[in-house]
Amino acid sequence: MLASLTLAAPLAHADEGQWQPYQLPELQKELKQLGITIPARQLADLGKHPMSAIVSLGGCSASFVSNAGLVVTNHHCAYGAVQRNSSAKRNLIADGFLAKTRAEELPAGASDRIYVTDKLENVTAQVTGGLDTRLAGAERHKQIQSRIKALIAECEQDKAYRCSVPSFHRGLEYYRIRQLAIRDVRLVYAPSDKIGNFGGDVDNFEWPRHTGDFAFLRAYVGKDGRPADPSPDNVPYHSKDFLVVSAAGLKNGDPILLAGYPGRTSRYKLPVEIRAARDVSYPRRVQESQADLAVIAQATAGNAEWAVRYAAVAKSINNGMKKTQGLIDGFARKDIAAIKDTQDAEFRQWFAKNGAGSEPTLLAELDAVIAEDIALTEQEFAMAVATQSDLYRAARTLYRAALERKKPDAERELGYQERDQALIKARLTRLEQSLVPAVDQARWQAALQRYARLPAATHPQGLDAKLPAAEAVPALYANTLLNATANRLSWLSKDAAAIEQSEDPFLRLAVANQGLAEAMEQRRKEVDGTLERVIPRYMQAFIAFKKSQGKPVYPDANSTLRVTFGSVAPYTPRDGIIKGPFTKVEGILEKHNGQAPFNAPQALRDAVQAKRFGAYRDAALGSVPVNFLSSADTTGGNSGSAVMNSKGELVGLNFDSTYESVTKDWYFDTAITRAIHVDIRYMLWVMQEVDGAHNLLKEMTIKGAPRR
Amino acid sequence: MLASLTLAAPLAHADEGQWQPYQLPELQKELKQLGITIPARQLADLGKHPMSAIVSLGGCSASFVSNAGLVVTNHHCAYGAVQRNSSAKRNLIADGFLAKTRAEELPAGASDRIYVTDKLENVTAQVTGGLDTRLAGAERHKQIQSRIKALIAECEQDKAYRCSVPSFHRGLEYYRIRQLAIRDVRLVYAPSDKIGNFGGDVDNFEWPRHTGDFAFLRAYVGKDGRPADPSPDNVPYHSKDFLVVSAAGLKNGDPILLAGYPGRTSRYKLPVEIRAARDVSYPRRVQESQADLAVIAQATAGNAEWAVRYAAVAKSINNGMKKTQGLIDGFARKDIAAIKDTQDAEFRQWFAKNGAGSEPTLLAELDAVIAEDIALTEQEFAMAVATQSDLYRAARTLYRAALERKKPDAERELGYQERDQALIKARLTRLEQSLVPAVDQARWQAALQRYARLPAATHPQGLDAKLPAAEAVPALYANTLLNATANRLSWLSKDAAAIEQSEDPFLRLAVANQGLAEAMEQRRKEVDGTLERVIPRYMQAFIAFKKSQGKPVYPDANSTLRVTFGSVAPYTPRDGIIKGPFTKVEGILEKHNGQAPFNAPQALRDAVQAKRFGAYRDAALGSVPVNFLSSADTTGGNSGSAVMNSKGELVGLNFDSTYESVTKDWYFDTAITRAIHVDIRYMLWVMQEVDGAHNLLKEMTIKGAPRR
Repeated sequence: MLASLTLAAPLAHADEGQWQPYQLPELQKELKQLGITIPARQLADLGKHPMSAIVSLGGCSASFVSNAGLVVTNHHCAYGAVQRNSSAKRNLIADGFLAKTRAEELPAGASDRIYVTDKLENVTAQVTGGLDTRLAGAERHKQIQSRIKALIAECEQDKAYRCSVPSFHRGLEYYRIRQLAIRDVRLVYAPSDKIGNFGGDVDNFEWPRHTGDFAFLRAYVGKDGRPADPSPDNVPYHSKDFLVVSAAGLKNGDPILLAGYPGRTSRYKLPVEIRAARDVSYPRRVQESQADLAVIAQATAGNAEWAVRYAAVAKSINNGMKKTQGLIDGFARKDIAAIKDTQDAEFRQWFAKNGAGSEPTLLAELDAVIAEDIALTEQEFAMAVATQSDLYRAARTLYRAALERKKPDAERELGYQERDQALIKARLTRLEQSLVPAVDQARWQAALQRYARLPAATHPQGLDAKLPAAEAVPALYANTLLNATANRLSWLSKDAAAIEQSEDPFLRLAVANQGLAEAMEQRRKEVDGTLERVIPRYMQAFIAFKKSQGKPVYPDANSTLRVTFGSVAPYTPRDGIIKGPFTKVEGILEKHNGQAPFNAPQALRDAVQAKRFGAYRDAALGSVPVNFLSSADTTGGNSGSAVMNSKGELVGLNFDSTYESVTKDWYFDTAITRAIHVDIRYMLWVMQEVDGAHNLLKEMTIKGAPRR
Repeated sequence: MLASLTLAAPLAHADEGQWQPYQLPELQKELKQLGITIPARQLADLGKHPMSAIVSLGGCSASFVSNAGLVVTNHHCAYGAVQRNSSAKRNLIADGFLAKTRAEELPAGASDRIYVTDKLENVTAQVTGGLDTRLAGAERHKQIQSRIKALIAECEQDKAYRCSVPSFHRGLEYYRIRQLAIRDVRLVYAPSDKIGNFGGDVDNFEWPRHTGDFAFLRAYVGKDGRPADPSPDNVPYHSKDFLVVSAAGLKNGDPILLAGYPGRTSRYKLPVEIRAARDVSYPRRVQESQADLAVIAQATAGNAEWAVRYAAVAKSINNGMKKTQGLIDGFARKDIAAIKDTQDAEFRQWFAKNGAGSEPTLLAELDAVIAEDIALTEQEFAMAVATQSDLYRAARTLYRAALERKKPDAERELGYQERDQALIKARLTRLEQSLVPAVDQARWQAALQRYARLPAATHPQGLDAKLPAAEAVPALYANTLLNATANRLSWLSKDAAAIEQSEDPFLRLAVANQGLAEAMEQRRKEVDGTLERVIPRYMQAFIAFKKSQGKPVYPDANSTLRVTFGSVAPYTPRDGIIKGPFTKVEGILEKHNGQAPFNAPQALRDAVQAKRFGAYRDAALGSVPVNFLSSADTTGGNSGSAVMNSKGELVGLNFDSTYESVTKDWYFDTAITRAIHVDIRYMLWVMQEVDGAHNLLKEMTIKGAPRR
C-alpha cells in the first residue's frame, strides 16, 4: 500500500539513511556514484551474498566470516560470554582467550543467540487491514497485538525460527521477520580487554580512538543442521554465505557499506518531543544515573568482588549517561528543536493545502496523543526509579509470568508466551552475575528517596502509598530468599496462587502492587493504541510531504536489518581542528600509561616499537591503522556491524560514534556525524603479531594486500 | 674571534633557529629554498628595510607600519597603556579605544618606550680580551661588568640612545646594541578586550584560537626629531622605514619570516639542568603560583576594585604557571632529558678526542659550577617566596638605590645608574595600579608560611632569623606610609642615611636585611663569574662539536633582535587529530557564550552572521581567517613580532605558542612546535567592519587582495 511513498527521491545526503535492504534498488544511482560495485538488487536480497552473511546477536550485530559458523562481532558484544567463562584463577577478561581448536571453544551462555534473518514479508495488510478507523486506545492496541501474535505463532511453527512483527514508521507498516535462532553459541577468540576495551569509559564516544573492539564466536547446531540446545554433540553451523576479508583496507574518501541491526532513532519525532527530551527527560535521566552510580560506587567500595559484579552494570549506566549528556550538549551546540520547528511548520503549511481536507482533525489528534505520551513516559520513568531493585523486579517478573501462564498461550502478552519462557529463565539466572543484595538494597533505598523528590505530576497515581519507606527496605532484603538463583527459578514452575500465598516479602510486594502495575500498563496500551491510530496517518502525510520536496524517506531504526552507506571521512568538531579519519598503532603507545583503561599488553607495545607491521602497514600512514571514521548512519545496535568496501568485502567493524554525533538519533548532521570503526588491518595484525590466532586467520578467506 | 664557529652548517630543520640578523647570509640557500625572496644580505642589515622597521617595546616586539611612527603590536603588549587610560567611567579595556585624530591619541605611560635598534657591534674583544684566564668568581664578574658599563656609557653619550651589551652563548660573545629610545609613546587604537583578549586565560597557549591580539601605538619625538619626554609639543616620529601590509594573506605551506626580540631560551643547557627544572624547580614554581593565586582570589573576593587591581597580576602569574605546567607536561610526554643525555654523551665522547687535550679540566669545572648555579637558583627562589611583598620590595629598591647613589656612576650596579633612575621611578609609580595593602599583606603572610615549608637546604643562610613572623606582618602594613605613591617616590631623592633613620617599618626591615641581601648577591656574582669563565669555553667546544656534525648553531635567545623563518603549517598534537593551520571568524561564534572571556562584541557577531567579509575573505576557507599557526622558532618576548611573507610584507603578528610546544625553550621539536599568529586579514577586517578604524587603514600602505 505504501511502497510508492517510500520510493527514494534524489538524496540530499548520501550518508543519511538506515535503509531497509528492499529500498536499495531505488538508491542504485547514489550507490554507483559513491563507488559501490555490488548491484543494489543483490544487496536487497536477504538470501544472497553479502546480506545473508549478516547476523544479529539480539542487541548487537555481527557477520559470518567462514562457512563453519565463525562470527565476528565487537569485543563489548561478546563481553558477557568472556565474563561468564572467567574466574579468579582464569581471568579471560584481562588475559584474553583463544581457542586453538574447536574443542577448546567455550559456551557463550544460556541467553546468547545468533539470529540469521532469512525471510521478510510486508504484513501491514494483515496487521492493520480492516481495522475500524475510529478504533483507538487499548482496544485498538489489543487487536493489533493479537494479529501480531497470530502472525508470529504461524511463523514459529518451525521451532528453528524466531519471528517478530516490528512496526515501521511508528505503525505505518509492519514486516514479519523470520530468523534462524541458533542457541548453541561458543566463544572462539577475544583479545585481552587491554586491547578490546583499550580506552574504556574514558574514550567511550571519543576520538581519537584506539580500541580493538572485536571478538569471534561460533554458531553450533545439531547434527541435523538445525538449532539445538547447547550440547557437546552439536556441530559447527554450515554458514553457506560469509564475508570475505580484505586486508587491503581503505583510505580516506573510500566508499563503505555497513549492514546491521540499528536499535532506535527518532528522526521523525515532533519538536515538542525533542524539547521534552532536551529540557526535562534527558537532564532528569543524567541526574538519576549520576546518583545511582554514586550509590553503587559507595556500596561496593572496598569490596573487590562486589565491585566486579557491578562493573558491567556501572559501565552500562555510564554509557547511557554519556550518550544522554552528549545529546544534551549537542542540543546546546545546535538548536535541533529550532530546525525541527521550521520543518514542522513547513509540513503543517503543506498539509493545510494538500492533506487536511480529508484529515481535518489529524494534527490536533497528533498533538494531543504526543502530549499524553510525553506525560506518561515521565511517569513510567518515575516508576522505574521507584522500583530500582533487581530483586523486586525479579519478583514482579515471576508473578507476572505466573499470571500470564493462566491464559491460553495466544492470549498472553508478548514477552510472556511459551516462546519467551527460556529467555525469562535465562534473564533470571543471569542476574546472579550482577547482584549483591546489600548493593541492591542501597540502590533501592537511595532511589526511593530520589523518587520522592521527582515532581508530583510524574508520580503514578496510587504508587506512593504502595512503596515501602526507605527505612523498611532492609527488612525486605533480610527476609527474602530470591537472591538465590535456584529459589528464583523455582517460582517459575509454580502458579500464581502459590505466589499469592508466599511469605517472601518481595513476592508479597509484587502481588500487592499488581493492580497498580496493571493500571500503568493499561494506560500505556491506551496511549499506544491511539499512537497506532494517529501516527501512521501522520507519517503517511509526512512522507508525502518529504516526497514533494524530493527528500529521501527511510523508517526510524527499530532493531531490524538495515544498510547504510557513506565514506571514510574526517570531520571538524570545531573551527581549527580536524579529527580522523585514521588512528595508528603508535597512538596506543601515546595513550599507554600502564593503568587501566590505558594499559596495552607488553607484546603489543613491543610489536609497535619494533615496527613489526608486516602486511598490515598502510603506506600512506606508514603504520597499522587502528580505528577509522566514516560518514555512515548508525546507532546503538549497530555495534559489531560489518563495514564493507565497495565490493562487499569486510574491512572493519562498527563499534561507536563520536561524541559530537550522538544527536543523530534525532537529526542527522552530515558535517559532524561520524561512526567509529575498528580497521580490519588492526584486527588481523593483533591476531598475527600479538595473539597468534593463526588458526582463525587460516579459517577466514583473506584477500588483498595493502596498497603499494 | 668566533665568527667562523657560528657559520651555519647545512640545516637539519629550516624552522629551528632564532638567528642573529648578521647570520642570515649564511642561510641564503635555506631561505631561497623556502621561498623567501628578499636577499639575505638585505635582511642582515639593520639599517635597511625590513629590519629597520622592527622595534622593541622592552619585553614585547613591534614594527612600524607608517612613516609617521605608527607601530603595531599585540593587544596584550599595549594592555598597560589601555589600563592606565581607563577609569570606571571610561572603560577602554572593555570598550576598546580608537583615536580618530592624532590629537585624540592618549599617553601610553611613563615607562613605555619604543626602542629602534640602529647599531650592533661585536665587542667580545673589549669585554673579555686580556682577562686573566684563571680569574674566576666575583672578581671576574666585576671586571666584565665594569668593561660593559664603560662600553654602555661611551655609547650613551648621545642621550637619544639606550645601549646594552648582552652576552651571546652564555658569555662566548658580546655585542653592543644601540637603540633609539623613544619615550613619548601614545595609544592609537586597541580593540575591545572582547576581541583583543577573546578566550583570555582559558585559551592562553591553546589552539584553536580566536584572539584579535593587536593594537596600535605611535612614537612621538621632539620637534628636532630626537627622543623627548612626553609633551603636547612633540610630533610623530618620522619612521623612514615601515612594513607594507599585504591583505592577500597566506595559505597553508606558505613561507614566513618573523622578526622580533625573543627573551630567553635554554637550548644549550645540560641534562642535569633540565632534570633540576623538571623534577624540582618547575613543580615547586607551579605549586607556589597556585597557592599565591588562591590567596589573591580569596583576598580580593567580593571587592570588585581590588579584583581589577590584581587582574593583571593574576593574569601574569597564571600565564607563567600555565607555561611552566606545559613544560612539565611536555617533559612527561617526551623525555627531552634523555635526548639531551645522548647529545651530551656524544659531545663528551667527541671532546675527549678533539678538545680535552688543551682543556683537561673543563668538564669537571663545568659540572661543578652548574651544580652550584642550580643550588643557588633554588635559594634565590626561596628568597623570592620569603619576600613576596610589593611594599617590602619597594623598600628594598629604595634603600638599594640610595646606597648605589653614594658611588660614582660608573661604579654603580647595572640597573642603578643614572641612566636607570627614570625607570626605577616609573616602576615605583606604576605599582599603584596593582597594589592593595590588605591583599599584599595576605600574600606575604601566606608566602612566609610556604617559605617555612620549603626544604631547609633552599633557605638562604641567615634569612630565617631576619624574616618577620607571619603574625607580625599586619603591624608592618598598619604603620607604613609606602603604600602612597608620593611617599614612595619622596625617598628616591633622599640619601641612605635618611632611610637608615626612617621609622617606616618596611624601610627599617630593608635596612636590617641589607647585609643578607648583599651576601646573596655576592654569591650570585661568584657563581656568575665562574659561569662566565667556564661556559664560553664549553660553548666554544660545543659549537665546534655541532659544526663537526654539520648542525646549525644560533645563540640562545637573550632579548636581542632575531629572525626566524618557517612556514604556515598544521600539526598533530596526538594520533588521529590535526590542528590548524587556520581558524575562521565563525569559530568566534562557536566559542561565544556571552561570558568573559568568550564574549564577542555584538557588532563583530553581526558582521560574521551577515557574512560581511568584504575583501578579507579567504577563498579556500570561505571566510575571514582569524589566527594561524607557523613552524617559526619563537619564545616569550616575540609577542607582537611582525610575521612577514616571502617579500617582507606584514601578514600577521606573533602572539603565542601552542601548549605542546612550550618545551621548545629547551628543545625544538619540529613535529609539534607551532607559534600562533593573528592573521592580518582579521586585523584589517575588524578595523574595517567592526571598529571603523578607517583613518589607520588609510595611513598604512595596504597591498594586494585575497586570492581569487
